[in-house]
Amino acid sequence: MRLRLINPNTTQAMTAAIGRTAAAVVGPGTRVEALGPSMGPASIESHYEEALAVPGVLELVRDGERDGVDAHVLACFGDPGLDAARELATGPVLGIAEAGMHAASMVGRGFGIVTTLGRTVGRSRELVQRYGFADRCVEVRACEVSVLGLDDPSSDARALIVDECHEVLASGADAVLLGCAGMTDLCRSISDEIGAPVVDGVAAATVFAESLVRLGLVTGKRGEYARPPLKEITGLLSPFALGGAPALL
Amino acid sequence: MRLRLINPNTTQAMTAAIGRTAAAVVGPGTRVEALGPSMGPASIESHYEEALAVPGVLELVRDGERDGVDAHVLACFGDPGLDAARELATGPVLGIAEAGMHAASMVGRGFGIVTTLGRTVGRSRELVQRYGFADRCVEVRACEVSVLGLDDPSSDARALIVDECHEVLASGADAVLLGCAGMTDLCRSISDEIGAPVVDGVAAATVFAESLVRLGLVTGKRGEYARPPLKEITGLLSPFALGGAPALL
Amino acid sequence: MRLRLINPNTTQAMTAAIGRTAAAVVGPGTRVEALGPSMGPASIESHYEEALAVPGVLELVRDGERDGVDAHVLACFGDPGLDAARELATGPVLGIAEAGMHAASMVGRGFGIVTTLGRTVGRSRELVQRYGFADRCVEVRACEVSVLGLDDPSSDARALIVDECHEVLASGADAVLLGCAGMTDLCRSISDEIGAPVVDGVAAATVFAESLVRLGLVTGKRGEYARPPLKEITGLLSPFALGGAPALL
Amino acid sequence: MRLRLINPNTTQAMTAAIGRTAAAVVGPGTRVEALGPSMGPASIESHYEEALAVPGVLELVRDGERDGVDAHVLACFGDPGLDAARELATGPVLGIAEAGMHAASMVGRGFGIVTTLGRTVGRSRELVQRYGFADRCVEVRACEVSVLGLDDPSSDARALIVDECHEVLASGADAVLLGCAGMTDLCRSISDEIGAPVVDGVAAATVFAESLVRLGLVTGKRGEYARPPLKEITGLLSPFALGGAPALL
Amino acid sequence: MRLRLINPNTTQAMTAAIGRTAAAVVGPGTRVEALGPSMGPASIESHYEEALAVPGVLELVRDGERDGVDAHVLACFGDPGLDAARELATGPVLGIAEAGMHAASMVGRGFGIVTTLGRTVGRSRELVQRYGFADRCVEVRACEVSVLGLDDPSSDARALIVDECHEVLASGADAVLLGCAGMTDLCRSISDEIGAPVVDGVAAATVFAESLVRLGLVTGKRGEYARPPLKEITGLLSPFALGGAPALL
Amino acid sequence: MRLRLINPNTTQAMTAAIGRTAAAVVGPGTRVEALGPSMGPASIESHYEEALAVPGVLELVRDGERDGVDAHVLACFGDPGLDAARELATGPVLGIAEAGMHAASMVGRGFGIVTTLGRTVGRSRELVQRYGFADRCVEVRACEVSVLGLDDPSSDARALIVDECHEVLASGADAVLLGCAGMTDLCRSISDEIGAPVVDGVAAATVFAESLVRLGLVTGKRGEYARPPLKEITGLLSPFALGGAPALL
Repeated sequence: MRLRLINPNTTQAMTAAIGRTAAAVVGPGTRVEALGPSMGPASIESHYEEALAVPGVLELVRDGERDGVDAHVLACFGDPGLDAARELATGPVLGIAEAGMHAASMVGRGFGIVTTLGRTVGRSRELVQRYGFADRCVEVRACEVSVLGLDDPSSDARALIVDECHEVLASGADAVLLGCAGMTDLCRSISDEIGAPVVDGVAAATVFAESLVRLGLVTGKRGEYARPPLKEITGLLSPFALGGAPALL
Repeated sequence: MRLRLINPNTTQAMTAAIGRTAAAVVGPGTRVEALGPSMGPASIESHYEEALAVPGVLELVRDGERDGVDAHVLACFGDPGLDAARELATGPVLGIAEAGMHAASMVGRGFGIVTTLGRTVGRSRELVQRYGFADRCVEVRACEVSVLGLDDPSSDARALIVDECHEVLASGADAVLLGCAGMTDLCRSISDEIGAPVVDGVAAATVFAESLVRLGLVTGKRGEYARPPLKEITGLLSPFALGGAPALL
Repeated sequence: MRLRLINPNTTQAMTAAIGRTAAAVVGPGTRVEALGPSMGPASIESHYEEALAVPGVLELVRDGERDGVDAHVLACFGDPGLDAARELATGPVLGIAEAGMHAASMVGRGFGIVTTLGRTVGRSRELVQRYGFADRCVEVRACEVSVLGLDDPSSDARALIVDECHEVLASGADAVLLGCAGMTDLCRSISDEIGAPVVDGVAAATVFAESLVRLGLVTGKRGEYARPPLKEITGLLSPFALGGAPALL
Repeated sequence: MRLRLINPNTTQAMTAAIGRTAAAVVGPGTRVEALGPSMGPASIESHYEEALAVPGVLELVRDGERDGVDAHVLACFGDPGLDAARELATGPVLGIAEAGMHAASMVGRGFGIVTTLGRTVGRSRELVQRYGFADRCVEVRACEVSVLGLDDPSSDARALIVDECHEVLASGADAVLLGCAGMTDLCRSISDEIGAPVVDGVAAATVFAESLVRLGLVTGKRGEYARPPLKEITGLLSPFALGGAPALL
Repeated sequence: MRLRLINPNTTQAMTAAIGRTAAAVVGPGTRVEALGPSMGPASIESHYEEALAVPGVLELVRDGERDGVDAHVLACFGDPGLDAARELATGPVLGIAEAGMHAASMVGRGFGIVTTLGRTVGRSRELVQRYGFADRCVEVRACEVSVLGLDDPSSDARALIVDECHEVLASGADAVLLGCAGMTDLCRSISDEIGAPVVDGVAAATVFAESLVRLGLVTGKRGEYARPPLKEITGLLSPFALGGAPALL
Repeated sequence: MRLRLINPNTTQAMTAAIGRTAAAVVGPGTRVEALGPSMGPASIESHYEEALAVPGVLELVRDGERDGVDAHVLACFGDPGLDAARELATGPVLGIAEAGMHAASMVGRGFGIVTTLGRTVGRSRELVQRYGFADRCVEVRACEVSVLGLDDPSSDARALIVDECHEVLASGADAVLLGCAGMTDLCRSISDEIGAPVVDGVAAATVFAESLVRLGLVTGKRGEYARPPLKEITGLLSPFALGGAPALL
């Protein structure tokens, strides 16, 4: 089995960390590849950056189809381009926010999310509602560390995240969901420190994608997620239009 | 006052129709401009096409900021790029699905949506829930005419839409919301034919955007919708990164 | 175009303030009239007072029909008699709570309401749910100033309202909705002070009513909002029964 | 114990039927009184009529306070004036829609409502949502018989109601709730005919009001439902303003 | 009329207290019996204990059917075995959480629950959602006294409960619902102390069960709650399988 | 890794089928055990049977703890005893309804459930709401074949299930979830026949349980799901009380 994880931003250190996490959780015989896009923002902390990350994500999904990968994971907590990727891909596609919420709801009644900057809280709440976890998610908290700041060894990012995790538990949650792919390296140690389940969406999406492939499940293609029609797409995005996805489709 | 309507697809006939509708409903002293993007799909009937339309939309919002327009309308029923546009723009930004649902809920208890292809129903339902109209929207129906097919004089598009409008009324709705900017020219005549309020999101978004400007209301900028941080954005999308939006921001 | 605003209470100073607000926001060519009822309470801060305000409101809607006004606005935050008024009137009818919530949800993800006495919070929450804004309204707070106290120059009403507005913003809202027509004069200055969008329902309902008239939209009359049947109505309310609304119907 | 049922319309035959139903279900030692108002519509089938029935209802609640009754029942399926009555009364107040929905949800998972004219369906649905029974109420159906037509011996009202009851059961409901006080006489016989529980809100509200008195429960008076402030109320409604309710308060 | 209350735990002092409460609220002519099971836990504070209490509850419902009782009340706030009991019993069955929430919602807009140990809060919230009271229940608070600790004269249980009741009122609730049958003796005195309605589910379920019998209402038996099929049930539970419930069925 | 699947009914053929399914989907190195209880019903089609199956399920979970299994799966679509099992077990516990709904929501926007007898539909809907999938589950349909009838070679069970699957797809669902562990053998062939994803909860729960173990996630034990207190449990259930679970705890 061949799983491909897409880091929607262009920061290669994050791509590498995502790949390490995935490799550590898959079963024997499953091959993991983590890739970053040729275009897009260095990190995603706004709707604007998320929107501009999507073409790069879709280009990589197109490549994944060409390469015959079995499933894709979109490794950014906003799940950018998830519906479009499901249209393009033959196999299953999972976002890490989606997968993380599913996992967190399997180990308790309520969970809380600890995200990066406060401005991303709204997007997390929107996804909580979209995926059906409004009764399960007791709160979304921000540690006010930027995505790239998470990786700055001089910062107190980890301590700030732990503080917010304690707040989440104090409000009655059974588990914490980390709200950024950039926190993937911290998951185990924070769980040990706070004594409660901590979910990393990157790892969760990886094992769930592997699970769906084992189940033989792929995205339903009879309606909304059928491959998009072959259509002219003008301009900067021409790789998709000419030699790219539509040709594939 | 200066309102700019953005047609997220590249079909100029639709841009022109959108402009005509808007010009017909604004008050004296309000100037309306309808523009189409330099890049993107010819029409939007899938998540994939919607995603690839967003960069072109955002480029036009960036231009609108440069030009000092007072408000923007995104004239595609999927409201592509709405959150990102609200971050970029100083003035209010409205999507036509959003505005159409607000208008439809002001003239009765329940409304139904008549959209184009069945594959777009899921996106409409997602927006219904996101905007809070789940109790108001009694159903979403597809006429199974493509966006560009709406404008084909040899098609029976209008008759198929009217059939679905009658179904919507039969299910108890007080009003019908047309689920595509390409239906803007049909609104009045269908309302006359079926004897019930029919809402065109293009017209609704135009007058509501004008309303917000009159009220002095702009998007709240203290949190989620603050301007995005200045950040490197690689590759095909460089116009945004170099001379474009971030510089503006 | 001719819009009529109905102040459901008998305090003429509030009627005048409502008229000033409306006149300031409509477009050229739109005529605004603000009227108060011949009967009812001096202010509305309880369900009991709201109920007893409704007959006077409906009498004024009957008059509006006779006078051929294009749309009505009900200028009390409980939206008293809204459904009944929609049955009586040919043109659109908007309540200021309803319109204010629509406007507030167009300029951000979440808004909070600042109302007068704590005893009115329940009614506000009921309307929030009825109109579909339960996910958008982050909280309803009371400044504990009575409706008529708002206009007492010796009171610290404005400061108390501003305090509650700051609390609303601290809880993560993008905008504040003022929960009483008596606050209409304060909207702009409070918005300037707190640096966030503040919505006055009176102004919002006025421009949205004007918008609906421009769109040619009226209340759907095929079902729930059809004119009520001609029927005997006994006693104190005979003006409606004899020469009034039913005769009109 | 002394229970007072208020028929919000002026049709005395309905008042009498309501009284018969109540007398048949209360326990020994409970005295039942059914009264109709001095003003208001002959029947209630629109929001307009419901609004104009409320002052008469509140006048009777004021009288009930004077007379020291222990609890009130509002015997119209729109529960007109319920919140205002709760403010005025010392003891509990129940609406028949409210009580009927509570009862119906105690004898199964889902129930359906059979109401009179189709135009009243919207009000029923609004109450279903307000009282929290949206997941329990599987549908609301209209038999298209008017309130007064229910009592016309030449009509086929009963047969039409039974037809709708069968439809409700076919959609999976465990029980049927009759959506009009005017159906109170039919409850038992229809239940026998269709072989499923049929709930009459008049009877349900009577026994539940008696229950609340036995429990020593009255409306909470610390906030929203505290007695309304003493305030001038002008004009036609002067009985309330001068010698009436506020004086009582 | 003959009502049977089932205490799902084996602590006889609680059974006696439940019986006293019920006897005090029923009308003349209604006979009340309170019984405890032959098997099960001494008190219920976990899902595990609740699960193991259910067979004993069902055995008692089987006995109640044999004895011809008119209705059953399940007197534990988790409503253990409620659906199964509704299948077995001919007459109505009410849980005390269910009945208490219905009663609490009849005397105000919002109520709060004060339960025993914090670990039971999740079950209360689940029942709140299941019964439709999510908009009505403003919070669930734990006094952190165990069920059996409630009856320990040396404990400060009552004071701790009162503290939580005050917190509930401070959050805007109109009424408090006691979240354990073991609090039944405290209801009146706490209500007097805090000056707000306090609901005891045991008393509420008793009068509502009596009410349903007066109304002639029984659980609908056409679908989900039809008697279970006669089927082999192995092992420890054989009393049900051989001479017990299925034979009865 | 060692996963244990518990068939809550005593029919050994079903236990064997469940074991075959699980063995076919786990990864290399994962050992699967399928066990049935020593007590309980032969199949589960009512709340009564589900309740009486729970003690046997919990006995097996107790044994699983003793044996050091890494995770448990409860292989009945009502997820009987899930919360109690989560309290008892150290590792994760998944129900097949829960897991199936998670999987079905990962391969499309909407899914439908095809269950056995109509009387089980209510339980499925309750679980749909509890797990947060109310917006995702478009309908629950019954094929009206009993659990044991599924395995009767002379029945037309498979054809009836396929009919209902087609109905589910016709209502717009992207995927079908099979609503009984007894359908586990049919999943692949029905998916092939209808050309859409078909989810078997047994398989889904198995791979997701394996996933949670790989992630190092266990049920949060700080609150609701902490091990139950050591307490006397009387009578028939003494194995739990004396040498069983509490001793373990």
